[in-house]
This record gives sequence, C-alpha cells and structure tokens, in this order.
Amino acid sequence: MLALHTPAPEWKISKWLNTAKPISLEHLRGRVVVVYAFQMLCPGCVSHGLPQAKAIREAFSEADVTVIGLHTVFEHHDVMNEKALQTFLHEYRIRFPVGIDQADAASDIPLSMQMYRLRGTPSILIIDREGVLRHHHFGQLDDLRAGAMIGELLSKGVDRLEYGNNEKRNIDRQCDENTCSA
Amino acid sequence: MLALHTPAPEWKISKWLNTAKPISLEHLRGRVVVVYAFQMLCPGCVSHGLPQAKAIREAFSEADVTVIGLHTVFEHHDVMNEKALQTFLHEYRIRFPVGIDQADAASDIPLSMQMYRLRGTPSILIIDREGVLRHHHFGQLDDLRAGAMIGELLSKGVDRLEYGNNEKRNIDRQCDENTCSA
Amino acid sequence: MLALHTPAPEWKISKWLNTAKPISLEHLRGRVVVVYAFQMLCPGCVSHGLPQAKAIREAFSEADVTVIGLHTVFEHHDVMNEKALQTFLHEYRIRFPVGIDQADAASDIPLSMQMYRLRGTPSILIIDREGVLRHHHFGQLDDLRAGAMIGELLSKGVDRLEYGNNEKRNIDRQCDENTCSA
Amino acid sequence: MLALHTPAPEWKISKWLNTAKPISLEHLRGRVVVVYAFQMLCPGCVSHGLPQAKAIREAFSEADVTVIGLHTVFEHHDVMNEKALQTFLHEYRIRFPVGIDQADAASDIPLSMQMYRLRGTPSILIIDREGVLRHHHFGQLDDLRAGAMIGELLSKGVDRLEYGNNEKRNIDRQCDENTCSA
Repeated sequence: MLALHTPAPEWKISKWLNTAKPISLEHLRGRVVVVYAFQMLCPGCVSHGLPQAKAIREAFSEADVTVIGLHTVFEHHDVMNEKALQTFLHEYRIRFPVGIDQADAASDIPLSMQMYRLRGTPSILIIDREGVLRHHHFGQLDDLRAGAMIGELLSKGVDRLEYGNNEKRNIDRQCDENTCSA
Repeated sequence: MLALHTPAPEWKISKWLNTAKPISLEHLRGRVVVVYAFQMLCPGCVSHGLPQAKAIREAFSEADVTVIGLHTVFEHHDVMNEKALQTFLHEYRIRFPVGIDQADAASDIPLSMQMYRLRGTPSILIIDREGVLRHHHFGQLDDLRAGAMIGELLSKGVDRLEYGNNEKRNIDRQCDENTCSA
Repeated sequence: MLALHTPAPEWKISKWLNTAKPISLEHLRGRVVVVYAFQMLCPGCVSHGLPQAKAIREAFSEADVTVIGLHTVFEHHDVMNEKALQTFLHEYRIRFPVGIDQADAASDIPLSMQMYRLRGTPSILIIDREGVLRHHHFGQLDDLRAGAMIGELLSKGVDRLEYGNNEKRNIDRQCDENTCSA
Repeated sequence: MLALHTPAPEWKISKWLNTAKPISLEHLRGRVVVVYAFQMLCPGCVSHGLPQAKAIREAFSEADVTVIGLHTVFEHHDVMNEKALQTFLHEYRIRFPVGIDQADAASDIPLSMQMYRLRGTPSILIIDREGVLRHHHFGQLDDLRAGAMIGELLSKGVDRLEYGNNEKRNIDRQCDENTCSA
C-alpha cells in the first residue's frame, strides 16, 4: 500500500472509456477523487465495489467529487480485454470514466496497480482536493465509512477554498430530491 | 422543521434508558451528535433507522460521535409505554442511550418533537461539535449520505479543535478491525 | 417438537384478530395451512418470519393456502398484550388472521405452543390438505425451501382432490402479474 | 415461449463445462431438471438468476433435482466466448454443469434458445421427472415461487415413483443441517 498523506501519483492509462479525452489527476485539483480499482470478472467488484461507485456518483455533485474506474487486470488478461470491458460497461450501465491500467511487459500486474501497491480488487483510493492520497482500502467498504471519508475531505477543502455553503446546500438538495424523504 | 444552522435546542426528556444519568445536549459540546427520533412500533424505524443508528455507533469513536435515540411517541401512547420500550430495547439489543420524549398534556405530540418540528418517524437530526443543528431528515437516509454528513462535521470540528490526526487514525483503525478488509 | 406425519391438533386461541369469526383447523381441510408462531417484539419474527408469511399470502391462492399467525407470547406478557398486538398488526399491515395463543394459568408458555412443543419464535408449521402436520421449523427458513414444502403439499392434494390444473394456472398467473417478468 | 405441458426438446450444446461428459435431457428422466439460460455479462443473471441456481443446487438432493446452466449468447458473441465463460465460472464458483448453446450460422440466436423460444436472459425452464416442460419464466423469479414449482414436481414424481418418504426426509435433513435452525 502506498503511504497515505503523500501526493497521489499520476495513474498510467492505456485507454480511457466513457470520456472524450484523457483525465489526469493533476487536472482534478479542487475535487475529491474516488478511484475504484476493479476487474470486470471480479465478483466482489460487481456486487459491491461498482454499485458503491455508482451510488457515490449519484450522491455528490460532479463539481465536488470525481469518480474514476481503474481497470487493473492482473489475471485472465485475454478475456478481460478492451472490447469485453466496453460490453461490460454498457450492460452494467456504468457511465463514469474508466481508465484501462497500462500493461507492464515484464509483469502481470499493470503499472498503476504497481505504483499504488494495490493488494487486489476491489480497491478504493480516496484523494483529497489537493491531490493527497487520504484513504486506501482493499475489499468491501461499508457505505457509512465511505461516506464519512468523502464528507471529511469535502469539508476540509471547503474550509480552505471557501465555498463551504455551496457544498452543504448541494448535499442537502440532492438528498431531498432523491431518496431521503419517506 | 426547525431552521438549520441555528443552535439545537435542549431536548425535553421524561426518562432516560441505557444511561446511568440524564444527558444534556450542552454537555456534548465537542462531539457530533446524531439523534434518531423513533417509535418502537414504526416499521421504518425498526428496519432502517435503528439499524443505521447502531451502525453509526459502531463506525465512529464515542469520543467523536454520540448517538442518541429519542422515543417520540405521537400515537398509540398506551402500548408504546416505558415498560414496552424497555423490552423492545432489550430484544433489539439497542445499547445507546434513549430518551423518552416528554409528553405534552395538551397534545399527542411530545415536547421535543414539537420543538424540533419533526414531521414523523424516523427522523434524523445531526448536530455539530458546537451544538448547531446541521441536518434534519424525515424518512430513510442512505448510509452514504449519512456518513458524508457526519464525516463533514467531524472534520470541521477537527480543524478548529486541532485533533485531526487522531480523528483520521480512528476511522482507519476501526475500519481495519471490522469490515473493510476482503 | 410434535411428531411429524400425525394429525395436527386443534389450536387453542383466546382471541382472533383480522377475521370476523374464529378459525378452526378442522374447517381448513382441503387447504395447505401455514402457521407462523411469532411474538410481536421478537426481532427474527419481524425481519424474517412475518415478511415471509406475507409473501406466502401473496404467492398462493386463498383457495389453496391459508396463512395463520399465532401470537405465542412466552415472555414479557404485559407489554405484548392484545391492544399492543392490534397496533402492531395495523402498523406492519399484516392482514391475514392472527390468533392469540391461549394463556396457561400455570405456565408462561401458552397452550397451543405447549401442544405443538414449539422451541420458540419464529416457528413455522405446515399442515397438509388432510390436516396432517408435515413440517415444523424453529428459526429462519429460506424462501426456496419454504416454497418447496408448500408446493409439495399443494401438488399432493391436487392428485387426490383433482383440481390440479386450477392449481397450476394459479401459480403461473400470479407470477406473470407480479414479479416474474424482466 | 414453447408450449408448457409438452415434452421438452433435447438441447443443442456445442461444448459442456463442469462435467466430464455431455448431458442429455433424456438421461435425466426421473429427476426434476431446472435450466437457467444466462449470458455471463447479463447483470440480472449475475445478481439473481445464477445465485438462485446455486441455492437450488444446495437445497435439493442431486438424486432429485438437476441444475443445468445454458449459456445462450445472443449478443456480443466475441467477448462471451468459451474461454471468457470458463474464467467467469471459475471466478463466480459455479460448479454445476453448463452447456454452451450451439451457434446458428444464420442467426445471432443460438439453437436451443430458438427451440425453446426464449425471450432473453435470465430464463428459467423447469422440466418434470418425465421430461415434460412445466414452467418457463423470463426474468427474475422469487425463491418462494421457484421453490413451490420444484416442490410440486418433486412430489408428483414421488407419488408415481413411490419414493416419497425418501424425498421428504431429504428436504428435512438438508434443512436441519444448513440454515433452518435459529
């Protein structure tokens, strides 16, 4: 696991899906970035990780939280190829950007996965508004703790960047519109 | 609904359960306070509100987050009496403090429920470290948003009170011990 | 546990709810009878037993399957009284007939519970079209097995009583109307 | 949809997985056969159909109920190929036999899917002990109804084939061993 509270390194992506142009971590400064490392044939990713990623995409404003999928294939590379992933994203209606982690000719483990020292999939990385890696979890993370980690980082940015009220209204508003009322 | 971002009024409690002595909101300064208003025979409280309250109690340190149950009976008062509530708390293994909202001789609606202008049960009130009411929700609130609201307030207190690292380690640690690892 | 494959004894009920007149097991000959023994403050009854009872009520025709609740209070008698039960049934929208198991002056265990030698709540009793006790389960029973037990008994009756087609159409029809289509 | 209550036609399989030799429907006479038609990248198959197939495999004896997967690919043929399916079955720990529905050079719809006139995936076919198609459902089928359909057919076979007690003991026993006790 890469050390927490240090700058998150730029990911290495061979191909982006669900986005017109490549996304660099550097250009996401000012937003909390939530990265879901997954493999399309990993059962825990399909049942828990990716549904949580979709729920986070729904719960927060795109201005505050960016959700990124990172397809870190470290086994069965031939059947989890780009075309298969495209079909998977289409069938599972995953609309947020997904980067294919760049293969390493010398290893089964792709480059971003190596850099972040991920133990497997699903893994969740949460990066603060200043680009610092704040949380790293391998396995299932319950929604309450995932929410607390994001809320904590949203708020911190707010204090420094001074758009706190905007923030708060935003969470309230979405909550009223969607699922919060009986 | 009582105005958000104003001081939360002191609750009116006729009897406390699960605690040796009465709890006043004033003495909880420095902690985020999450109040679940419920009725023991309200299905939504039993299936969603109270399990979420228990999960919050597990997910955060008692030093940072206080969870309070508020039994706001506004109908069927005779069968949701103190003795019935005690049995309910015992059978459902609810261990956090529960205050019985004080009856109003002139109304079916008890006093704290009136003061906070609750629409019904379950209702969730989230009060920040300085005693200011920050969130108020009637009905089911998903864990992701509940977590974000709490995380946001935890963090804010931390900036001002300067025990930020402690905070963060705390969330990480519990997470490692319990459910976060695959 | 009362011996399986012997005639189910007539229950002893002090008061019926959700039905205009008392229901005797004898008058249910020709139908499969599913009895859910529960206590209104038993968490497993509320989360699993009673929802399954409601689902069975929905899934099968009343002409074939009778669902009966049996309120077998063996502890906390004072707070799980008739009035509390009425409120509970109203709030949880339980519409099938519920009999209050008759108290025994000499024991905390009510009479029907004694006769059927129930180990606790929830307990499920399944009685065939001829009044013979076929299944008895203490605790949670998964829907697949509960369905199989009922389907088995429905079918057997059909062979003898010759309304098999009616049976089959009935299951198909409800299934088409409700949840079976994508 | 193929007419119910007529003999189920023999499936057309290009390759069997999870079984040493091909399985013909004819050789399954005497058992209830439950066929799950699925595609490995169909979300409803992964979240509902296949978990239900696994639960049926657990709940009943192999002597009574055969569970068969039928991989009926009708879109994205190139990424849902044999090798991808093998990886999928391995990762999702699906151990029951799966037949790959034979491709039709003239159509995207494979041959068994055509013969059974399936509307899509997941589809469930239930065939009785005499090889007659009794149930056919497109989409999600709740466990209670699925169980009832199987129980109904198990029982019918029993009356004719006279191993009824065996049957009944079998269901009871598995239930006691696994999940039925509190």
